[in-house]
Amino acid sequence: MKTIVLIGAGMMGTALTLPAAANGNRIRVVGTPLDREIIEHAKKTHRQKTMDRKLPDENEYYQIEALDEALEGADFVISGVSSFGVDWLLNEALPHVPQDTPILSVTKGLVDDAEGRLETIPAYLERNIGRPLNICAIGGPCTAYELADLRQSCVTFCGKDMATLEMMREAMQTGYYHISLSTDVTGVECAVAMKNAYALAVTSAVGALEAQEGEGCKEAYNPQAGIFGQAVREMSRMLRLLGGKPENIMLAAGDLYVTVYGGRTRRLGILLGRGLSIADALAQLSGVTLESVSIATRTVRALRIRAARGEIDPADFPILMHIGDVLDGKCSLHMPWESFR
Amino acid sequence: MKTIVLIGAGMMGTALTLPAAANGNRIRVVGTPLDREIIEHAKKTHRQKTMDRKLPDENEYYQIEALDEALEGADFVISGVSSFGVDWLLNEALPHVPQDTPILSVTKGLVDDAEGRLETIPAYLERNIGRPLNICAIGGPCTAYELADLRQSCVTFCGKDMATLEMMREAMQTGYYHISLSTDVTGVECAVAMKNAYALAVTSAVGALEAQEGEGCKEAYNPQAGIFGQAVREMSRMLRLLGGKPENIMLAAGDLYVTVYGGRTRRLGILLGRGLSIADALAQLSGVTLESVSIATRTVRALRIRAARGEIDPADFPILMHIGDVLDGKCSLHMPWESFR
Repeated sequence: MKTIVLIGAGMMGTALTLPAAANGNRIRVVGTPLDREIIEHAKKTHRQKTMDRKLPDENEYYQIEALDEALEGADFVISGVSSFGVDWLLNEALPHVPQDTPILSVTKGLVDDAEGRLETIPAYLERNIGRPLNICAIGGPCTAYELADLRQSCVTFCGKDMATLEMMREAMQTGYYHISLSTDVTGVECAVAMKNAYALAVTSAVGALEAQEGEGCKEAYNPQAGIFGQAVREMSRMLRLLGGKPENIMLAAGDLYVTVYGGRTRRLGILLGRGLSIADALAQLSGVTLESVSIATRTVRALRIRAARGEIDPADFPILMHIGDVLDGKCSLHMPWESFR
Repeated sequence: MKTIVLIGAGMMGTALTLPAAANGNRIRVVGTPLDREIIEHAKKTHRQKTMDRKLPDENEYYQIEALDEALEGADFVISGVSSFGVDWLLNEALPHVPQDTPILSVTKGLVDDAEGRLETIPAYLERNIGRPLNICAIGGPCTAYELADLRQSCVTFCGKDMATLEMMREAMQTGYYHISLSTDVTGVECAVAMKNAYALAVTSAVGALEAQEGEGCKEAYNPQAGIFGQAVREMSRMLRLLGGKPENIMLAAGDLYVTVYGGRTRRLGILLGRGLSIADALAQLSGVTLESVSIATRTVRALRIRAARGEIDPADFPILMHIGDVLDGKCSLHMPWESFR
């Protein structure tokens, strides 16, 4: 039995408490300052408010002020913050975590800088905290809702230290939560991040057909599959560019597959495919947090800097560069079929 | 303007006459002995009977006895026979085709032998006809129905001779039919063949959920995506094993995506996922030609021979080997989640 402290009571983090509790671990959930209501609701109802799903009865809940108390005796920490919460985690929460306590991060994304570098979240956190951090991360196709519904899910835990990864897998693996291990943090995290722009592209084919034949028309899969194939080609190139292992393309492909059918990114992709500008599409989706837009924008921003320096050929990434232009409001979406190669 | 002779009036072959005719080529469609009714119907109605879709008004139709007449002045031949018709093509039709007339084959599949070799259809035809054959083939995610509906479709023409491929592309490319070219025949054809077993596996997740929650329940995508990712991993290994270029994994991924949503293979995968034996599932689908079952069975048969000789580790292909057992009637389908690696 391990003592696991989850920081951040969002959907994915709390969904992870289900396999963790199934293995008899002690779970302490600490909300961020934005999670106050979620924590109060969970204390009373044992449900996660945002996704309205049952959580383990054994979970203990803490507001952020009790972080130090919750961390006492922790075997490892799960960070459940979204990419928007990374700097809060870095500055407000991580300093409370003892140096030798391993961390498992669910945060998806890459951080870009003015030089066009793209850094994984674990690397970004370790560089900025200024001390060694035994940080691992989760990749692979797994949406929070379906994990909370105990659906068969395959993920990859990645990190520098295989012994830590094995300890975490033993704590978390169940008959429906299947965990592979990898020390290729760059490969796994790139795969996870890149799928965002491409999921917008694949789902835009649904909207493009609706623009021709009316909403609710029968779906067509040749166009989606054509974009899916080109997406895998471009994601393979990105993986190589950023130094990830080529075989992790399978994570990107699986993650793209699940995201095409996921809620928010799919809805945005369909609206863009219908010909809406990004501004109009986001207005229709008001109130929805679009992490995918932020991640896609950062990735393209970095690629543009590298392209300007002649380090990459943007023609190798026709979908990604076009989605970047669409997200910047430069044009509406017109799939560049003739540029696929 | 080219003169293009299509041999075999099945769905995919006749769907190809739409982009071909759009470019002003002269199209002659010659039915196999099994296509008599399709040809008569098309002569009268300009529609393909099996898929009930409109064909170009300019198409000319011939019964098989008029093959030599139809071949007169042909710039290239498209073979539209299914994998079940390959030996008919080899023995009855190809001897009529002049040696220097290039052929474009739509037939999907690999041919296995007692030594566990897997050969592409172009290689099989050339080896058996006993003379050089300028044969190209089509890969990539494109279903006949959607091509006939003029949906955006991305395919790859592969062959030994780039000049021939370019001539064919020029004849066939349109604003919705996008053609990449490749000289990696093995890679393209393997990608196309392998996706069959894996499409059964991905769609089985739909049936497995229905077995728990009832038919028509809400779909879950974590399980499908987990299998999809492992499928990409296994297909990459197969590509390497058979000597295809690794980058053609994008064709396999795109083709798998479209097949998951295609009609017949999806229906079989769902039935197997519900727990039906292959015999019971095929009984429910009576009358349906299941090329995918035949292709998957051949691939697994070859792998088993290689595994018995210690040339491959079957544990590298847990999904494929299990699907092989299911198709042989040895067991019902239980996804080997724990063996994914």
